[in-house]
Amino acid sequence: MTNLSQTVLDVLHDHRDSIDRLDAILIYTLGERFRHTQAIGKLKAGNNLPPSDPDREAYQISRLENLADEAGLDPKFAKNLLNFIIQEVIQHHKKQQL
Amino acid sequence: MTNLSQTVLDVLHDHRDSIDRLDAILIYTLGERFRHTQAIGKLKAGNNLPPSDPDREAYQISRLENLADEAGLDPKFAKNLLNFIIQEVIQHHKKQQL
Repeated sequence: MTNLSQTVLDVLHDHRDSIDRLDAILIYTLGERFRHTQAIGKLKAGNNLPPSDPDREAYQISRLENLADEAGLDPKFAKNLLNFIIQEVIQHHKKQQL
Repeated sequence: MTNLSQTVLDVLHDHRDSIDRLDAILIYTLGERFRHTQAIGKLKAGNNLPPSDPDREAYQISRLENLADEAGLDPKFAKNLLNFIIQEVIQHHKKQQL
């Protein structure tokens, strides 16, 4: 890094500061999202509903692909990310039904 | 679902509406985050910097674990999610350096 100009390092630093702030938004938003999925998990467990709901998941994925397109995000990445989050949620729901 | 009371369905519906709004926040925040990582990718490619930066990644993961803890999110899940996002970013950086 010693041969890089200070300008390059400053620009890199500014981008990283923005990323750190955006990551805080992501984590707190996910915290809020899990509060709702936990409530749904309890509701499902208390009413003998299955942990996963393929119709709802298909709706979410199709909606997120459109949102990703609008937000300039790779729709494939958005789909994979949502699947990653949904799998985590389903694991939590299954634990609640044991 | 026919035997469920309307109240249960209404509560489920309200939680799902909140989740849909939170997912829009997540997608748009990720869109903004990728704008910054793309700029970093160009900066790295133009200055012969390696696509990945293990010190920066270790800092981010440690910071996110603390944030997750504050936000009531499972720190292990936050760590796995950040790794998932970072791997996607590194793939993009590598493509920019070809």
